[in-house]
Amino acid sequence: MSKPLNIGMVGYGFMARAHSHAWASVAHFFDTGYRPVLKAVAARGAEKAKGFADMWGYERVETDWRKLVEAKDIDAIDICVPNDLHAEIAIAAAKAGKMVLSEKPLARTASEGQPMVDAVEKAGVANMVWYNYRRVPAVSLIKQWVAEGKLGRIFHYRAKFLQDWTISPDVPQGGQATWRLDVDAAGSGVTGDLLAHCLDTALWINGDISSLTAMTETFVKERKDATSGQMKKVGIDDAAAVMTRFANGSLGTFESTRYARGHKAGYTLEINGEKGSLSWDLHDLNRVQYFNHGVEGAARGWTDILVTDGDHPYLGKWWVPGLTIGYEHSFTHQVADFLDGLRTGKPASPTFREALETNRVCDAIIASGKSGDWVNL
Amino acid sequence: MSKPLNIGMVGYGFMARAHSHAWASVAHFFDTGYRPVLKAVAARGAEKAKGFADMWGYERVETDWRKLVEAKDIDAIDICVPNDLHAEIAIAAAKAGKMVLSEKPLARTASEGQPMVDAVEKAGVANMVWYNYRRVPAVSLIKQWVAEGKLGRIFHYRAKFLQDWTISPDVPQGGQATWRLDVDAAGSGVTGDLLAHCLDTALWINGDISSLTAMTETFVKERKDATSGQMKKVGIDDAAAVMTRFANGSLGTFESTRYARGHKAGYTLEINGEKGSLSWDLHDLNRVQYFNHGVEGAARGWTDILVTDGDHPYLGKWWVPGLTIGYEHSFTHQVADFLDGLRTGKPASPTFREALETNRVCDAIIASGKSGDWVNL
Amino acid sequence: MSKPLNIGMVGYGFMARAHSHAWASVAHFFDTGYRPVLKAVAARGAEKAKGFADMWGYERVETDWRKLVEAKDIDAIDICVPNDLHAEIAIAAAKAGKMVLSEKPLARTASEGQPMVDAVEKAGVANMVWYNYRRVPAVSLIKQWVAEGKLGRIFHYRAKFLQDWTISPDVPQGGQATWRLDVDAAGSGVTGDLLAHCLDTALWINGDISSLTAMTETFVKERKDATSGQMKKVGIDDAAAVMTRFANGSLGTFESTRYARGHKAGYTLEINGEKGSLSWDLHDLNRVQYFNHGVEGAARGWTDILVTDGDHPYLGKWWVPGLTIGYEHSFTHQVADFLDGLRTGKPASPTFREALETNRVCDAIIASGKSGDWVNL
Amino acid sequence: MSKPLNIGMVGYGFMARAHSHAWASVAHFFDTGYRPVLKAVAARGAEKAKGFADMWGYERVETDWRKLVEAKDIDAIDICVPNDLHAEIAIAAAKAGKMVLSEKPLARTASEGQPMVDAVEKAGVANMVWYNYRRVPAVSLIKQWVAEGKLGRIFHYRAKFLQDWTISPDVPQGGQATWRLDVDAAGSGVTGDLLAHCLDTALWINGDISSLTAMTETFVKERKDATSGQMKKVGIDDAAAVMTRFANGSLGTFESTRYARGHKAGYTLEINGEKGSLSWDLHDLNRVQYFNHGVEGAARGWTDILVTDGDHPYLGKWWVPGLTIGYEHSFTHQVADFLDGLRTGKPASPTFREALETNRVCDAIIASGKSGDWVNL
Repeated sequence: MSKPLNIGMVGYGFMARAHSHAWASVAHFFDTGYRPVLKAVAARGAEKAKGFADMWGYERVETDWRKLVEAKDIDAIDICVPNDLHAEIAIAAAKAGKMVLSEKPLARTASEGQPMVDAVEKAGVANMVWYNYRRVPAVSLIKQWVAEGKLGRIFHYRAKFLQDWTISPDVPQGGQATWRLDVDAAGSGVTGDLLAHCLDTALWINGDISSLTAMTETFVKERKDATSGQMKKVGIDDAAAVMTRFANGSLGTFESTRYARGHKAGYTLEINGEKGSLSWDLHDLNRVQYFNHGVEGAARGWTDILVTDGDHPYLGKWWVPGLTIGYEHSFTHQVADFLDGLRTGKPASPTFREALETNRVCDAIIASGKSGDWVNL
Repeated sequence: MSKPLNIGMVGYGFMARAHSHAWASVAHFFDTGYRPVLKAVAARGAEKAKGFADMWGYERVETDWRKLVEAKDIDAIDICVPNDLHAEIAIAAAKAGKMVLSEKPLARTASEGQPMVDAVEKAGVANMVWYNYRRVPAVSLIKQWVAEGKLGRIFHYRAKFLQDWTISPDVPQGGQATWRLDVDAAGSGVTGDLLAHCLDTALWINGDISSLTAMTETFVKERKDATSGQMKKVGIDDAAAVMTRFANGSLGTFESTRYARGHKAGYTLEINGEKGSLSWDLHDLNRVQYFNHGVEGAARGWTDILVTDGDHPYLGKWWVPGLTIGYEHSFTHQVADFLDGLRTGKPASPTFREALETNRVCDAIIASGKSGDWVNL
Repeated sequence: MSKPLNIGMVGYGFMARAHSHAWASVAHFFDTGYRPVLKAVAARGAEKAKGFADMWGYERVETDWRKLVEAKDIDAIDICVPNDLHAEIAIAAAKAGKMVLSEKPLARTASEGQPMVDAVEKAGVANMVWYNYRRVPAVSLIKQWVAEGKLGRIFHYRAKFLQDWTISPDVPQGGQATWRLDVDAAGSGVTGDLLAHCLDTALWINGDISSLTAMTETFVKERKDATSGQMKKVGIDDAAAVMTRFANGSLGTFESTRYARGHKAGYTLEINGEKGSLSWDLHDLNRVQYFNHGVEGAARGWTDILVTDGDHPYLGKWWVPGLTIGYEHSFTHQVADFLDGLRTGKPASPTFREALETNRVCDAIIASGKSGDWVNL
Repeated sequence: MSKPLNIGMVGYGFMARAHSHAWASVAHFFDTGYRPVLKAVAARGAEKAKGFADMWGYERVETDWRKLVEAKDIDAIDICVPNDLHAEIAIAAAKAGKMVLSEKPLARTASEGQPMVDAVEKAGVANMVWYNYRRVPAVSLIKQWVAEGKLGRIFHYRAKFLQDWTISPDVPQGGQATWRLDVDAAGSGVTGDLLAHCLDTALWINGDISSLTAMTETFVKERKDATSGQMKKVGIDDAAAVMTRFANGSLGTFESTRYARGHKAGYTLEINGEKGSLSWDLHDLNRVQYFNHGVEGAARGWTDILVTDGDHPYLGKWWVPGLTIGYEHSFTHQVADFLDGLRTGKPASPTFREALETNRVCDAIIASGKSGDWVNL
């Protein structure tokens, strides 16, 4: 009989929906020994929070997240609010002995994130950061194959995350829908929002980055503040490009922007090794492209693998070969792994400590973007 | 406040999982005024049914579907068992005043389906057949655009549904996993299983078929019976190809097989009209290909539309542009439309009556496959 | 030292350009022992023929093809005029002891083509029909791999040739640019023009067709005659779909139309066998898609083979891996094989006799399109 | 009547074949008023040069390029030898009053190239560098559309040229087949060989680069010298990545390597502007991908334009819509433009002067790869 795990959700926005779906549906597909219960949601706007709670079946609503942290019946705090609020909530939750899950990035900067790591480790509570793309089955398969040596020595790692939703100068900054454009709330622009995903995956698959240099740009210099209505200088990076050297000797190139017309959630990655190459595109998330140099010469090419078979990661729990899954499944998988971690005692990654590394790389990117210098990590 | 709708599920196999997910999650995304409750599941195998009920949170288990039909606390019967059982259950449920939802095809043949139509219409109960692919947003978009006249006069409709899972002669027939290969349980082979999907979509988008001729084949003539272990003649069609004339003057070509290596759930369709063409592939279900002849000459081409924007069908309820959905969402959409139909009094299609037409076309295909003659419909 | 081979070209249209390029360039890439010489061109319109001859370096122009046939200095007659003229010219050329190459189809009908076969065989002259797509390297590779058994037992053969250039009812019939719409000049519509290519390839790769049934349609019933300017009934098939049974037990589906918006030269083919599948698309003619069921399960998929390596058919004569070739190279390869055939005494296929078989299948399609019956071949 | 233009070819390798084909076939398709004549070829190896001349119909062979330069009957010298020989030959040819065409890059470095520019300009002779990819019709179309403002303000320019042919440490350096790995002959590695193409296109389409920073790497540190057989330090860059700022305010990212398994001639580019985006891939050189933000919302997407219509650049001279061309056609187009330039007096680009700019950028890349600093241009 599975054990209930009571979730206290902080926030009710886009990410709170994705996480709630994962908590609500994981036990229908994965037998982890736990049954998450949508216990309570906390948010300042009572009415909107109430609507959200009704939609998802949360049992109660709080207007102060501290109430969740203090509540006896809450096992885990799930943080789905802007980046500037992660640290305070996470540290309080850890101190209260709750498990803590934070939306990515861990914090606005590594120095802000370090105390979060310290807090959860001191408290000994389960913790995880929602870098969900690791659990797209295709990405998990790539991780597994690279680790197995299917590509041999790695020469190149290449990732981009392209969007186009902030091209109009009329998009404001700050407020609930556009806090990602406000440097105070977000910490950085595309670096913390988009590159962070690329970097988390890269560090996971290809290991440490030893040095990097970056180019950053803010195309639209001033935007209206969504709250005050006043024009305000834009403090975030609209676009960032990075060249890295990995500890394994391979070269990395990364790019992220919100000014690439036609790209919506254009996260792509490619790895080139001595024996083969692998690539992936979030827009076709069920597919992996694999070039296997070991194949007979005339038959070599890029194989388009539809990652929907029972022997592909996580897929045995879903449908039948050929039937695809979508974006939100990556969260369900992450919850499944988190719950497995509770059972086995082997924490699901990335923990706060692991995710802090991504913050460190992001900090180096922002610094190099300003100085133009190479930064050692 | 949303109204509960108590679901009685008959079956616990693959389709029962897909339907249960739809019932369980629809209210998290769609505000239909109804909140489905997974009330009870009925299946002969008590233990497996119990496991299924636990996984999904069904409140109780019955070993006889009649118990569900008779139960006062059940509002809707959802039939997820082999085709030969649809009619008896559906008719009994209708007589008991329950809403009835049947997995497709409606029945093994049109003559078996006709009394089902009669029963639900006489009882005046809500009814629907789970031709789920209509509710893939890309397919819904195609339907909408063809109806709006974006393609002008239609010349060609082309659809295929290709699989490869029965190539080995060691795959048995009958039993729980392979009843689709047993003509007694299934009624037909690829025609009722796969072509039925293609035909349902085609009739919906392109209107009536007036005549057709078909070629059918059984590549593996004998297979072991999964229950008895004895070799038994195969009665189903392994592959079927069809040429049709539609009432609107266009030509149709259809093909289905389980012997097309490399195709897993290879449902593809394409429509060619005077002003443009549209095509779709289930393996990339979030995409529509659109050729718009109205565009400036040198810029003409097939536009690959990622159907994930808020102004695409159903997508406003999910994530943000670029983030894709999967197979099971089509069922969630169908449930959402079914519930909307309850509220508005305008039944969600396809009703039993509408789905009976697909059975009629399937019957003609099987007949023509034997006679070699054109059949008028 | 290579031997000159004097070419007499009949016609100066599109196909004459493609053939002339092949004759002019073959010796730059293929060492066959022969060096074609563009000796003379014959056409009724002296001025246009003169312009054509100047462009290509033909040494002289004749206004009557009989002059070419009779000329002592001509070794081979290349027929690039409408279908209704093939027979007379080819028979005369054969009688005069010339090698004869005819643009496809061999003739308007098999009965018209039979005397052509008789003539070249009686005369013992080298002969060939320009079914050029066999020599697209990707298609040659497919032929080779199927012959080697890479796919095992074949279940399905599928081909289409889709165009969209006759949708407007303002396109006339007859005349120099649109004789393909005039049944008297062309013999048939898409069947002889487009399906003939699909059938030639299919017979070559997959063997004999034993029976078929067809559906044909003329969407635009009347068109202006390009010569007289009068409206005239359209006698050709605008679209044709065919279902076939091959002698090897596999099923074939074929379709061709000039009413498929967005398709320009949309010749595609796919073969499904027990061990794998292969497919190809003329719009991406340097690529073959290969599904190899022999590969480790989780890595299976369709491999996109860029057919540009030195060990691919004909490619060792061109550039380096990754650098593609185009449409006209198929003709160059056909000339290279023709010249090789002269040297080795093993005639390049398809000879007139081999090409006659395609005419036979085309005749059956036209007949079945009218009768609705299956036709045995 | 067209005027003969006598070509003196220096070299007989891969590039000499591509150029010879262009000279030999241009007049069959383009009416420029000139008819190139393959007059003489010069190369040190008399026997191989003789074989080459026979294959292509060159009238005579010289074993010293100076003979060509001095020959009265030669109008244009075409330089198809390793980079270290370009300058001496080009300067001598210019002094002798010959037109000069040089394979790219112009020279090993800008300082080596400057006197070449001076020489041709002083002599007033027609000159051109074979950056052939400008004349791939798809690339020409992109140039035209960007110039017309179809994309509006440009934000990003992105290009890569990926290969995989030097991964094995057994590939030697130097000699005839592998001089590109010898820094003395080539000047640089992927920078001058591959990035040079990307840069030439970028400068042409997107204007000047104002600053850049680069990362370069030599994966295989020692290779056997093809001539001496001795192991020798590798002096070239095996891989290079570059971040640039363009004068128009857009950001550029460039990458090139010969260590990207599965990429053969993987030149890809993409441009993102306010109103749309365009991208292209050499492996599918007949296609352009175009995202037009001006299209109705729900129908937006990337349009795959098959660049084979008569209103696409150069295509009116080739076949019919849907029929593709290949790699070598880009050279034919360049010759056609060169000959047009002779007629009109408006030189075909890139002239030596224009191509020198690419050498300048390459020099900056090599310098920055060593220093790690940004370089202003």
